[in-house]
Amino acid sequence: MTPSASHAVPRRRPAAAPPTVPPLAKTPRPAPFAGLGRIPITAVGPLAEGGRWPAKAVVGEAVPITATVFKEGHDPVGAAAVLISPSGKVHQTALMTETNHGLARWEGWVIPDAEGDWTFRVEAWSDPYASWVQAAEKKIPVHQDVELVFAEGALLLERAAQTRGLAQPLVAALRHTADRLRDESLAPASRLAEATGDQAAAALAAAAMRDQLTRSAAYPLRVDRERALTGNWYELFPRSVGCYFSEADGWVSGTLRTCADGIGRVAAMGFDVLYLTPVHPIGTTFRKGRNNALTARPGDPGSPYAIGSAAGGHDAIHPDLGTFEDFDYLVARAHELGLEVALDLALQCSPDHPWVSQHPAWFTHRPDGSIAYAENPPKKYQDIYPLNFDNDPEGIYQEILRIVRLWIAHGVTIFRVDNPHTKPLPFWERLIAQIRAEAPGVLFLAEAFTRPPVMLDLALIGFHQSYTYFAWRNTKVEVIEYLEEISSTQGSFMRPAIWPTTHDILTPYMQDGGVNAFKIRAVLAATYAPTWGIYSGYELAEHVARPGSEEQLDNEKYQYKPRDFGTPAALAMAGLLATLNGIRRDHVALRRLRNVSVHATSDSATVAYSRRLPAELAPDGRADTVLVVINLDPHNVRESWVYLDVAALGLAAAATDGEPVCQAHDLLSGETYTWAAHSFVRLDPHAMPAHVFQIDPLPGARGAP
Amino acid sequence: MTPSASHAVPRRRPAAAPPTVPPLAKTPRPAPFAGLGRIPITAVGPLAEGGRWPAKAVVGEAVPITATVFKEGHDPVGAAAVLISPSGKVHQTALMTETNHGLARWEGWVIPDAEGDWTFRVEAWSDPYASWVQAAEKKIPVHQDVELVFAEGALLLERAAQTRGLAQPLVAALRHTADRLRDESLAPASRLAEATGDQAAAALAAAAMRDQLTRSAAYPLRVDRERALTGNWYELFPRSVGCYFSEADGWVSGTLRTCADGIGRVAAMGFDVLYLTPVHPIGTTFRKGRNNALTARPGDPGSPYAIGSAAGGHDAIHPDLGTFEDFDYLVARAHELGLEVALDLALQCSPDHPWVSQHPAWFTHRPDGSIAYAENPPKKYQDIYPLNFDNDPEGIYQEILRIVRLWIAHGVTIFRVDNPHTKPLPFWERLIAQIRAEAPGVLFLAEAFTRPPVMLDLALIGFHQSYTYFAWRNTKVEVIEYLEEISSTQGSFMRPAIWPTTHDILTPYMQDGGVNAFKIRAVLAATYAPTWGIYSGYELAEHVARPGSEEQLDNEKYQYKPRDFGTPAALAMAGLLATLNGIRRDHVALRRLRNVSVHATSDSATVAYSRRLPAELAPDGRADTVLVVINLDPHNVRESWVYLDVAALGLAAAATDGEPVCQAHDLLSGETYTWAAHSFVRLDPHAMPAHVFQIDPLPGARGAP
Repeated sequence: MTPSASHAVPRRRPAAAPPTVPPLAKTPRPAPFAGLGRIPITAVGPLAEGGRWPAKAVVGEAVPITATVFKEGHDPVGAAAVLISPSGKVHQTALMTETNHGLARWEGWVIPDAEGDWTFRVEAWSDPYASWVQAAEKKIPVHQDVELVFAEGALLLERAAQTRGLAQPLVAALRHTADRLRDESLAPASRLAEATGDQAAAALAAAAMRDQLTRSAAYPLRVDRERALTGNWYELFPRSVGCYFSEADGWVSGTLRTCADGIGRVAAMGFDVLYLTPVHPIGTTFRKGRNNALTARPGDPGSPYAIGSAAGGHDAIHPDLGTFEDFDYLVARAHELGLEVALDLALQCSPDHPWVSQHPAWFTHRPDGSIAYAENPPKKYQDIYPLNFDNDPEGIYQEILRIVRLWIAHGVTIFRVDNPHTKPLPFWERLIAQIRAEAPGVLFLAEAFTRPPVMLDLALIGFHQSYTYFAWRNTKVEVIEYLEEISSTQGSFMRPAIWPTTHDILTPYMQDGGVNAFKIRAVLAATYAPTWGIYSGYELAEHVARPGSEEQLDNEKYQYKPRDFGTPAALAMAGLLATLNGIRRDHVALRRLRNVSVHATSDSATVAYSRRLPAELAPDGRADTVLVVINLDPHNVRESWVYLDVAALGLAAAATDGEPVCQAHDLLSGETYTWAAHSFVRLDPHAMPAHVFQIDPLPGARGAP
Repeated sequence: MTPSASHAVPRRRPAAAPPTVPPLAKTPRPAPFAGLGRIPITAVGPLAEGGRWPAKAVVGEAVPITATVFKEGHDPVGAAAVLISPSGKVHQTALMTETNHGLARWEGWVIPDAEGDWTFRVEAWSDPYASWVQAAEKKIPVHQDVELVFAEGALLLERAAQTRGLAQPLVAALRHTADRLRDESLAPASRLAEATGDQAAAALAAAAMRDQLTRSAAYPLRVDRERALTGNWYELFPRSVGCYFSEADGWVSGTLRTCADGIGRVAAMGFDVLYLTPVHPIGTTFRKGRNNALTARPGDPGSPYAIGSAAGGHDAIHPDLGTFEDFDYLVARAHELGLEVALDLALQCSPDHPWVSQHPAWFTHRPDGSIAYAENPPKKYQDIYPLNFDNDPEGIYQEILRIVRLWIAHGVTIFRVDNPHTKPLPFWERLIAQIRAEAPGVLFLAEAFTRPPVMLDLALIGFHQSYTYFAWRNTKVEVIEYLEEISSTQGSFMRPAIWPTTHDILTPYMQDGGVNAFKIRAVLAATYAPTWGIYSGYELAEHVARPGSEEQLDNEKYQYKPRDFGTPAALAMAGLLATLNGIRRDHVALRRLRNVSVHATSDSATVAYSRRLPAELAPDGRADTVLVVINLDPHNVRESWVYLDVAALGLAAAATDGEPVCQAHDLLSGETYTWAAHSFVRLDPHAMPAHVFQIDPLPGARGAP
């Protein structure tokens, strides 16, 4: 899919000056003391720091709005989530339901239909007819004040009938019901039944008799294009695509043009984001050799993260890779193939970076006049000079803004930001806000593997998406707990990117489990969250680590890495990745985050979870339910009972555990099973370690299509 | 203790109009989007709804301020909690410590010293010298850049020495240390030791070198007089004190004067709040008889909660009890004895209340013209007309404001509000705000036993104190979990009142456990939170319930209840209550809420918890630590190991589990034990079911006085 027109970014910077974001307030002011309204509405969510930063959503995504709502005494209340468009118009008023009476928690779902800065509020009201029903259902059966009770009900119905604009048939229905309530010739039970019947309910719903209507404050909801939530990423080092070794020339780098020739297979596997590691010139001073050796041998290409040489810095392209024309060619080819291009933004410099001489103030100088290199004592990273953002913050900001604009002008629509947590967070906040103002479709992914609050705050201040701890969550308990964590409240602020491996990450689980682990983690990653990513070479299950490390032996950060994707094993893995992307394309439930349910399993290595969009929240009006069952043990066949939470699957409960409740169509194998609430699986990691079921009600069952 | 002058309430309303509280905003506005400062400061607490309502504290109470604070990368940061007085002056800047590095959580304690609307904020900074020490401690031992590292340290020390206003000896110390760092003739290890030594640390602390200082917003902290947090309450029905039966006259009511004569023993037991159930005229229409009988017999006095008769309503005194002069006499006597007077505020009416005829709009009328009485179908409470606050909200508000002012003018300083959760919460919010403006010492206690969010919101909108679920928390797990719940974050907003029984509450545990249960729950309640309360008759362990109910047989709501407090058993229980109040008087740690630690025990019915104020947070500068060990089983002797959390007790850890760590002086028995971290107890509910230990370090130990 080519990025849609509304997200197209100009290929060249427009002549007109881009809009400038006004500076943000330096410190938040707390909300002023505010009184409760007639119906208390508190603990509204999703909310970060009382609304200091917006909750996040994408176009078409159903967003859960929650609140605590109650009235004094025991009178029933009603509540609605109101979604307000960026222009200030009420776009949707969604009835909320009470999800926990003991805690007075309510929830309703709204769906924004365009990008921009939306707001939402909660409205609550007293429901006089529901109050009457509550009392009548207790009193009538015990013959308490029968005529008086019915008279009260009739008055309420007549009041509802006077609702302005109510359709005439509904008015008639309300008056009819009122008359029946007053008809002493009828049995009280039948009068009560009529008062609570479907006809009265429909008319009352339309009349929407809402006393003591109370509104919460409006809170911010930032809506981005769908790619901010959902995508299939593929990472590669452009120089590796088309590189080769010859006796005559030694290693010959791949180029942006050979890379462009090599990405057809990426698109064919169903990926839609092509993520390029840095393409800039690489320094030679203290260049690292293969396998992170302190000294490079002749011909070692160096790490693309040691940016900058005489050939230029972050605004330049490595001469071995080509020119800006070549870059444009690669981007055009990617777009032809339906691939967006994401570029690394790694704000660090080799000692040879032009900034070192042009802007010495942007680095830290030591008492002996030397520039401080990166260190983690006793380790020295003499090939890297970190930027010092405090000496000339405005100068650095303007230069990096210029660089980001440059790559946007060349078709980059996503920046994968390397280690954002080692740069000042307010810098990112300002930069992302400015780019959002001038190119709202451009997205920023935070590659921060650090303490949870730092990752969360990066998301709050503007990063659209975040790498996660997924790679280190491998046991059943870890997998389930983390799935629920990323999909719950946190998911309203931090959109997860799920990567089984990267060029920096090869966990012991993957090293130990080999190809089976790669299959398991692919299925898990593809169904764990709306965005997943694959690092090139995954097809080959490259799982041998440099001894003592959790990254690959012969890591392509430090060398050329030609790969043969044509082996049967590689083709099989590529086929699995393609199948998974196909399933994700066909099932919107997998492209949403806040819709997960975990199902119990008897086996200690088997997990089961589902994602569901009910019909009323689905873009095409059709419910979509996917159930995933995975064996996490890469070495052994596992057998397990799966205990379905049938309500979470949108199914009617069965009379007995053994009775069928649904059809489970395995999207991996093509087989279809009739499943009961308690069903049995046997999963062989040497064959296929998982089921990915499309769940449908049994033909003829309630809710069946 | 007589209420101090600063809380004295005028006995008559002053001629000048009282200040009027401006109306509160109807809906909160969220804080404007605000940028992060240089050092991110987020998740500041205690905070309700982003600061919409203030956190609570009392004069002299240590308040924990928390925040998430970090800097990009790995540089050390520092943080402080800043307390700002109602006049806007910085009152205290308390260094915070990092309590959880992985979550970047910081905590510091501040102590307000006067009533009023304070604010607090968090400040954070980069600590360049700590950064240097962090690097130096890694580099010097491995001989990396030794002279360069020391040169950097020396420069920082010299910068610190230039701090304006720094005392000359400290300046000299810094310069001396800088010189030593530069002295290449010294061993690097000794130069490093000097750089991190006590002398340098003291001088650096005074210099407070804080780079990139960043401030959070200021958040509200409402400070009340100490009684809002801490008190020993005693509840009685005035008519029962001095009532008697004679053949000639039948039942003769106690009066406010006989009550005044009877409260000497209340003060003698160490109570400091005398809580009077309603003193107003009682209706006769549908009056309830003894044991809640639907029909009263002649002479039945009726429930004081069925308020209002021809003799008057909420602004009148029951003729049997006396006159306003008698009420003033009772209040004066109470004050003489060091008792504050709390009065019930029960906003409901008997059908005979003057409002029924004077203000029919204040009630709900049914279609047949009758006034709606209270109902819980099929139950009818025809003796009670609930107020309808929506027909004439302003009229009701002004009348109740008048009534509250009237009783304040007669010396009432606390209102125990009956069932506030059945009246509109915004009504209370307005009333309490107004009274706070004109009589800030007056306190409101919410008697709401309902859903948790309703109880919390009542606290947020202004109630100073809240009844709790304590009476229904009886097992070990329940007792511990609830103790931690009320003492943690919730404790910053909802101050608990702990009552083992009331005139409405006699739990199955108390019914079953009899006098032993009364002893157990007295010790528990007296040490569970800063405010506890005893309902008259507790001395007699009145534990027989009306069959099928959880309230007393012959409940004094419906009848006179003379009591003989002179029996040996009653005197023994009164002695225990007096001992407990004495312990609470002597131990400030028991008069604080947010200072609890639970200690593990081996027995399933034995709980152990401690409350501690370290010296720096104690009013008199002396640490106070109390450890409570209670057997919750009213029927059996229990033996248990207690596994002390020695750090929570302010003690140094022992080398072995069996080594003594403290002296444990039992304030109930007078005995003193030498305790190890693992110690053994045997608690007999037939004798004394608990230890209440004063914990002191062993003589000669670190931290011993």
